[in-house]
Amino acid sequence: MLTIEQALARVLAHIPPNGAERASLAEAHGRVLAEDVVSPGELPPWPASAMDGFAVRAADVPGELVILETVAAGGVPRHRVTPGHATRIMTGAPVPDGADAVLMVEDSEPAGPDRVRLGGGATSGQHIRPQGSEVPRGAPVLSRGRTLGAGAIGVLAAVGIPAVQVAVRPKVGILSTGDELVEPGSPLGPGQIHSSNGHALAALVREAGAHPVDLGSIRDDPAALAAAFRAALRCDVVVSTGGVSVGDYDHVKDVLGELGITMDFWRVAMKPGKPLAYGVLGGTPIFGLPGNPVSCMVNFYQFVRPVLRSMLGDPTPFLPVIQAELVGRTRRRPGRPEFIRVRLFREGDVVRAEVAGHQGSAGVLSMADAHGFALLPEGATEIAGTVAVQVFDPNFQSGKDAGYRWSAP
Amino acid sequence: MLTIEQALARVLAHIPPNGAERASLAEAHGRVLAEDVVSPGELPPWPASAMDGFAVRAADVPGELVILETVAAGGVPRHRVTPGHATRIMTGAPVPDGADAVLMVEDSEPAGPDRVRLGGGATSGQHIRPQGSEVPRGAPVLSRGRTLGAGAIGVLAAVGIPAVQVAVRPKVGILSTGDELVEPGSPLGPGQIHSSNGHALAALVREAGAHPVDLGSIRDDPAALAAAFRAALRCDVVVSTGGVSVGDYDHVKDVLGELGITMDFWRVAMKPGKPLAYGVLGGTPIFGLPGNPVSCMVNFYQFVRPVLRSMLGDPTPFLPVIQAELVGRTRRRPGRPEFIRVRLFREGDVVRAEVAGHQGSAGVLSMADAHGFALLPEGATEIAGTVAVQVFDPNFQSGKDAGYRWSAP
Repeated sequence: MLTIEQALARVLAHIPPNGAERASLAEAHGRVLAEDVVSPGELPPWPASAMDGFAVRAADVPGELVILETVAAGGVPRHRVTPGHATRIMTGAPVPDGADAVLMVEDSEPAGPDRVRLGGGATSGQHIRPQGSEVPRGAPVLSRGRTLGAGAIGVLAAVGIPAVQVAVRPKVGILSTGDELVEPGSPLGPGQIHSSNGHALAALVREAGAHPVDLGSIRDDPAALAAAFRAALRCDVVVSTGGVSVGDYDHVKDVLGELGITMDFWRVAMKPGKPLAYGVLGGTPIFGLPGNPVSCMVNFYQFVRPVLRSMLGDPTPFLPVIQAELVGRTRRRPGRPEFIRVRLFREGDVVRAEVAGHQGSAGVLSMADAHGFALLPEGATEIAGTVAVQVFDPNFQSGKDAGYRWSAP
Repeated sequence: MLTIEQALARVLAHIPPNGAERASLAEAHGRVLAEDVVSPGELPPWPASAMDGFAVRAADVPGELVILETVAAGGVPRHRVTPGHATRIMTGAPVPDGADAVLMVEDSEPAGPDRVRLGGGATSGQHIRPQGSEVPRGAPVLSRGRTLGAGAIGVLAAVGIPAVQVAVRPKVGILSTGDELVEPGSPLGPGQIHSSNGHALAALVREAGAHPVDLGSIRDDPAALAAAFRAALRCDVVVSTGGVSVGDYDHVKDVLGELGITMDFWRVAMKPGKPLAYGVLGGTPIFGLPGNPVSCMVNFYQFVRPVLRSMLGDPTPFLPVIQAELVGRTRRRPGRPEFIRVRLFREGDVVRAEVAGHQGSAGVLSMADAHGFALLPEGATEIAGTVAVQVFDPNFQSGKDAGYRWSAP
């Protein structure tokens, strides 16, 4: 049996190439940046006032000065500030030539029409954001491989960039195998169940930043399987579910053999989700995930998602891991490492983890309740106290006290 | 000056009503559920085998039995299991009538054509998932207000539901005010800067699950502002940026007065982001956020996002908070509570927080580097050690060791 790390090393050994495309800021939001971005201009583009007040020569303060003009944000100074003069200026407006300091309104008092008395002192440069001080021209702004959240979109706009190169979303062909599968909404005949893995996988693929291509539920018939896999191979990655247990996958094996591919059937030392089939044809990775819904999702998160994130150029392709305090303790018979589905919630400033519902691989509801996986290590019989949790759903906020709390530590 | 909690209580006192709409599973993914979902059927829909093996009467084991037939997943048993008989059965297939236990293949050996010898013993019910044992008919499956991630989509499909009611995405009108604003991609004239808040806010609104309506950058001219606000009031929520500092917002104030709205200009005790304007017209909340990009985003996360999530029906509308170990220590002069932008990364199983770039409100790059806010409480002069972090970007994974690690605690 392979360890999780061994299986992961094998699938990560082959990351298919992936292209880039130009996207506007709105389209680029949430995507992975495919270029290193440097600033085409300076920020601020000119010396800018950081306050509402008066632009002066520091040497003229304290004193009574003649007001030359008023410059608002978006305005352009028309006059140079010469000795004995001041310009009324708003936050964000360009500081006029000749001035080397801004005094706050609070330090001024009117001294007749067009005159102002400025108290206190002034140091050269005060309350002025020098040209290029925030972002110099050519400064690195964002690195290739990062996911573009709202902050990154704001920065791109601020330095004047309307569009960037982003990684193309890999197309992931999804096919479910099994004669028993019926689409949700259709009534079940004898021996039938509703197809759920295809829907869950499409969502998982989207959440990983890739593009799901639904190839439907395929009957366990050689001609149908061959046609489905041939169509799937036009995608960048293929994920099938069902029939990975050795013995009942014979049709798929034969079909893939005819298409020229040898699948490795692995038993990975993990629970749930032991069986995993993997192969590559013409550069396209093909994953055969278990048909059990929980095992299918666990396998996707551990093996398929890191491949998709790596294709996108994300240098940190794994799920975030946080620490949480386990509620109670969970005992098991010693065995394979086990992914325990946990619900996360916040109590005060502490994140707590609670085992989610039924933990058998049949407990499909546990995947909807859970926000992450706590790992019971190989051979361990208990987890308790502080546990590390792989987070797949960051929508945990507050539990018993659902309020906004900032009574910091 | 209002505290953060006081300002939040005021904006949360008015949550506009929001409708629901039917969405297919693919469309519902990532949306907020607007109904309580119960299971229309049972899971499994019939007693199902949990193993590859033989369906038998437990009383007949150990013994040599006549094989009646083979039932695969998706198949339907044709024969009742009577004394002295067994049915070969695959994982997930319906258990035939008459059988009350499944024996694993490992416990069998062939005993001539159509005969099998079954060793060991059997208890009634073993390796059978009883009908409805996982999800009984009418069982609560998912609650209204929850965000539908991949696990929830899988559960809906598994119980046979093809579409659900989800909260309509509130339309958020975004307008940027200021004569100095030029769209990214256009060259800057004297005194001009690139408009960034509108782009960042559109992304923030999308990330909150709402729908941004870009109303552009509006010159500080009464007629243009009146037209823009009139258009904005067709949205469910209006967010404007710029000109919230008392004094230079006069046109907007006049225009809003003519439209029948009184804005409250608040000074909220927080840093950055002190000024915040808020009002309601005809049920529509209107937020006037500061023009400074960092202050604008901090205000959005603290005040606008909770309103949007509440409109969607999310009972936990606040950002998730996790604990992290601050790298080094951060000192400040005592003052208003301060939102320190921090970059999160993982080292082993510990999440570390590192202060992101320049923390002045001009440090726009810090919003792109950061994953969350650490709070420096009012009057405090230092944060160090374990800090609580509001996470707005969960895309932090691994830092210095970027590998997959499950060397659990």
